[in-house]
Amino acid sequence: MDNLTLIKVGGKIVEEEDDLNRFLADFSQIEGYKLLVHGGGRLATKVAKQLGIESRMIDGRRITDEETLKVVTMVYAGWVNKMIVAHLQALGINAVGLTGADMNVIRSVKRPVQTIDYGFVGDIEEVDADRLAMLLRQDIVPVMSPLTHDRQGNLLNTNADTIAAEVAKALSKKFDVMLIYCFEKSGVLRDEEDEKSVIPLIDRDMFMQYREQGVIQGGMIPKLENAFRAIDAGVKKIIITNSSDIQCNKGTVIQSCF
Amino acid sequence: MDNLTLIKVGGKIVEEEDDLNRFLADFSQIEGYKLLVHGGGRLATKVAKQLGIESRMIDGRRITDEETLKVVTMVYAGWVNKMIVAHLQALGINAVGLTGADMNVIRSVKRPVQTIDYGFVGDIEEVDADRLAMLLRQDIVPVMSPLTHDRQGNLLNTNADTIAAEVAKALSKKFDVMLIYCFEKSGVLRDEEDEKSVIPLIDRDMFMQYREQGVIQGGMIPKLENAFRAIDAGVKKIIITNSSDIQCNKGTVIQSCF
Repeated sequence: MDNLTLIKVGGKIVEEEDDLNRFLADFSQIEGYKLLVHGGGRLATKVAKQLGIESRMIDGRRITDEETLKVVTMVYAGWVNKMIVAHLQALGINAVGLTGADMNVIRSVKRPVQTIDYGFVGDIEEVDADRLAMLLRQDIVPVMSPLTHDRQGNLLNTNADTIAAEVAKALSKKFDVMLIYCFEKSGVLRDEEDEKSVIPLIDRDMFMQYREQGVIQGGMIPKLENAFRAIDAGVKKIIITNSSDIQCNKGTVIQSCF
Repeated sequence: MDNLTLIKVGGKIVEEEDDLNRFLADFSQIEGYKLLVHGGGRLATKVAKQLGIESRMIDGRRITDEETLKVVTMVYAGWVNKMIVAHLQALGINAVGLTGADMNVIRSVKRPVQTIDYGFVGDIEEVDADRLAMLLRQDIVPVMSPLTHDRQGNLLNTNADTIAAEVAKALSKKFDVMLIYCFEKSGVLRDEEDEKSVIPLIDRDMFMQYREQGVIQGGMIPKLENAFRAIDAGVKKIIITNSSDIQCNKGTVIQSCF
């Protein structure tokens, strides 16, 4: 199967034009098929504040009422997405910006209210891998913003990490998928304070061990659990790294076993 | 050749959810290939105001500085475009929202400064009719927001009427194109105060006559001049009508001659 590199890039980098340009230049150099998923939460919070809308987060998830949905749609699908697309075009990459509603590529359901009402937040039900593969094979590079839809006319705010994982899983039926999660740190760290303490490889056994020892903790646990689920679903390799290192094989490589 | 209906819908309708839903329901019923171009200027002015950014217009054209470009990108390509796409998906139409940067479908140049510096405003140089035709033939309905790009990394605010005309011209090589301009009035009126005074047909001779008589004046003159240029370039038929009448053959039909 052909190789596909799927990169998820977080909210901070899209705020810094220089960092973003450097990242997009690196991204444009990746050989083979590629796809980008971006966030934009920090910018959304900033714009919401300017519009006098309070951002309410629970466990890092944004409570998305109707007004907030407008803001995230404007920021994610408008500003951030189109800025990235225009930059990639300048780099010779034929990008297309998509939400899950566009070409119906990702359908979700509005998260049911249990203890918390997250509002217009989506849980992914279906990714149209055929459509995405068709675009990729036409040398189009999808740039996906963290919004999906319910096919009832509602856009739904959807976690970008989850979009990356679900798209990677769906496309792993058609490509050998490498999924790269970019964030601010250099990888999964042994010592949160030491950027040089990157754990280069983690397999399932090592993950169990690190977790028991308390080396891996907090928000990194669900991130890695998701990563192993993606591996189980057919994704070949997952890398967690800094957005400035996507070209140089740094960061933490996650595989089923070594 | 196959028929293509290309509709441009203005800024006011996108503000009124009921009107928009009715319009999109009508749009979804159109048979054959179809494409939608939308505006959003009034909403952009509203959001700019909420963000404390002054909207400056000259001859109805928005002066687009860097901050204003962010606002129009958020409003046009984000909020308005994705709301329309999600609604069309609910109506069973496989829409994709596009700016000119997406898949490089419309390339522009930043308007040169003569007496007025319009800022990040684009004059269209090239429409990729092949790409748009390919999407249409895959039963995808492009929904185009009034933004293009210069392939140097800049998005450019671009008049929606002009986008509709240029896309119609480019696609007239591949389809029999009918271009419908929707606005608030019922058509080209003999008497601006009387919605019932719609002129049903205008050809080039009649246009000259009406203009001499002062029946057609003001902003309608460049609108009709553009329409005749599109007809010259191969567009089969142009209709100027109210957005609630796209299904019922009302409004003013413009053809080269009768």
